Amino acid sequence: MDRVAIVGTGLIGGSVGLALRAARPAISVVGFDADHSATRRALELGAISDLASSPAEAAAEADGVVVAVPVDRIEDALSALAPGVRKDAFVTDVGSTKADAVRAGERTFGDRFVGGHPMAGSERHGIDAAHGALFEGAWWVLTPTETTASGAYSSAARLASTTGASPVAVDPDTHDALVARLSHLPQLVASVLVHVAIAAGDRDALLGLAAGGFRDVTRIAASHPELWVTILRSNRRAVSDALDGFQTQLGRVAACVQEERWDDLRDVLAAARTARLELFAKPDLPRDPVALELLVPDRPGVLAEVTTAAGELGANIEDLRIVHSTEGGRGRLELIVAGEGPAEALADRLRALGYRVERAILSE
Amino acid sequence: MDRVAIVGTGLIGGSVGLALRAARPAISVVGFDADHSATRRALELGAISDLASSPAEAAAEADGVVVAVPVDRIEDALSALAPGVRKDAFVTDVGSTKADAVRAGERTFGDRFVGGHPMAGSERHGIDAAHGALFEGAWWVLTPTETTASGAYSSAARLASTTGASPVAVDPDTHDALVARLSHLPQLVASVLVHVAIAAGDRDALLGLAAGGFRDVTRIAASHPELWVTILRSNRRAVSDALDGFQTQLGRVAACVQEERWDDLRDVLAAARTARLELFAKPDLPRDPVALELLVPDRPGVLAEVTTAAGELGANIEDLRIVHSTEGGRGRLELIVAGEGPAEALADRLRALGYRVERAILSE
Repeated sequence: MDRVAIVGTGLIGGSVGLALRAARPAISVVGFDADHSATRRALELGAISDLASSPAEAAAEADGVVVAVPVDRIEDALSALAPGVRKDAFVTDVGSTKADAVRAGERTFGDRFVGGHPMAGSERHGIDAAHGALFEGAWWVLTPTETTASGAYSSAARLASTTGASPVAVDPDTHDALVARLSHLPQLVASVLVHVAIAAGDRDALLGLAAGGFRDVTRIAASHPELWVTILRSNRRAVSDALDGFQTQLGRVAACVQEERWDDLRDVLAAARTARLELFAKPDLPRDPVALELLVPDRPGVLAEVTTAAGELGANIEDLRIVHSTEGGRGRLELIVAGEGPAEALADRLRALGYRVERAILSE
Repeated sequence: MDRVAIVGTGLIGGSVGLALRAARPAISVVGFDADHSATRRALELGAISDLASSPAEAAAEADGVVVAVPVDRIEDALSALAPGVRKDAFVTDVGSTKADAVRAGERTFGDRFVGGHPMAGSERHGIDAAHGALFEGAWWVLTPTETTASGAYSSAARLASTTGASPVAVDPDTHDALVARLSHLPQLVASVLVHVAIAAGDRDALLGLAAGGFRDVTRIAASHPELWVTILRSNRRAVSDALDGFQTQLGRVAACVQEERWDDLRDVLAAARTARLELFAKPDLPRDPVALELLVPDRPGVLAEVTTAAGELGANIEDLRIVHSTEGGRGRLELIVAGEGPAEALADRLRALGYRVERAILSE
């Protein structure tokens, strides 16, 4: 791979360029963005080595093309590219839903198109947010179909690994069903939970009674509506299916409550608990994670004191959450420490430092 | 208040005793628990000053009685107490749902009963988990009705403040409706989301695609089913109403998706976003919280290094989350820092220490 074209030099496209050029300094990365100032900025930042004045011009001579435009503009970008792409080059995209993109990609490029979706965390936009380490340690889902050429797939996978990501193959419909259930459905559900909550009382009463669980469940409801509508729209069939499945299962739970079938409800909750614990079991987490809770003053330096004490004792903090008091000036700090011994030693040390430390249950 | 009786010396009852005796060393706290070893242990730990052999004996001579038994045993405990309670004493409980308890309490004790629900975080059980600082800084909801005597209310409120909590009055049905929407409904929804997710794929695919949002939304699904069934059962009417409200609103959202009414969907998401941000707006948080994300090795001492750097720079870490890599050995650390200046200074410092630091968007 000597020459790669990137169409769309925003956060993802720019980060791909930075990562490729960091890993392979000799590579040519030709960029195009409909916003010409973004293309120029990408050149300035070193995310691309050359700029093109059209998608087709960027693609000319490239061994591979990465389409990194918003999901609702992928189809147009593929059409604009088509005249310039070499007959032996592969084309991939980075859209967060895959069935439509893959259909459009295969229509235009046949077996040389491979859908992709890097699972990189940031949702900021624009070339100035780009970072060469964005994909480091992340999964990069590729969505080959039965028609995908093996050469195109292996080139796309190599490109993903070169950025520091781990490529993994999932079929496009499975991908869309999974993200619908793991990301798009939870987003809608969290927003609806907020609506149901605020219908019930004034802010003070809500705040007084909203525990950490509600904060966790509704955190993603603060995400950007514009961005989410674009994503949901691009995955509307799978999202509809996920909503159907959710409504059916919630209906069963509601029936348990209404018909007072408490044993059945317990079974549902127990199965969910087991699945949740298994799903996120940290592979090397010892058997007995212990939760500690502290009241801490809300000022710089407190976290350092607490975590330094843990570090000195060799107690690895597996998880940490800060719950700010609604009265200000103070917060609760929740720590998960692996192992009874290290947890007790840390609790003792923190008490010696003047903190009030309680044991808490996990997962609330 | 010279003498208080506590019926049920588990986590909450024991912590009430410890807190009262710490604040007012001269006070007598007489305890009873159906599990006699728990009563003896409470005496050993200093949570009570005297033990009684029945609820009625504990109540005799007391100025106030705190019923701290599980919510499904409150009614029985009130009956058992009745013969011993002084005609001018108040009686309160600490159950997590209120309509049934208040009805039973008023039937037995008339205007001298005041329902209560301390919003203390721990869900561990038993006297050995009791702690005198459990209520420090927490809300203590009291649920007076139009028949409650003002003297009984003010005594219960004084008891709550003496433990370090802030008493707040909410009517029993409003309380139950609020906890149904803020706690019980989210619990059921989180469990159903897990069921829907695991139906969609194998563990590897799920883990690869499950982002931080899914972890947050489903965290409470790992709570204890037994405990939750007791709570849900005691609040079944309000939980049913909350489920109805949720299903109706989710149905509207599902219709937006199916009918492709994207502007309507955007409005729903935008209203939820605004409400969520306003609800948990930290009163003294400056306008511009900034999110930073770091890849960190998963070992003791790393958090200390990061938070010490923040402390030295005077950058207050408003929130912090650890996302363990599913591959082990490494995790992502997400920090929220108040203010552009401190955030940039911290990012620079951390980069100088060799960390890869990215800006991330808030709330994802």
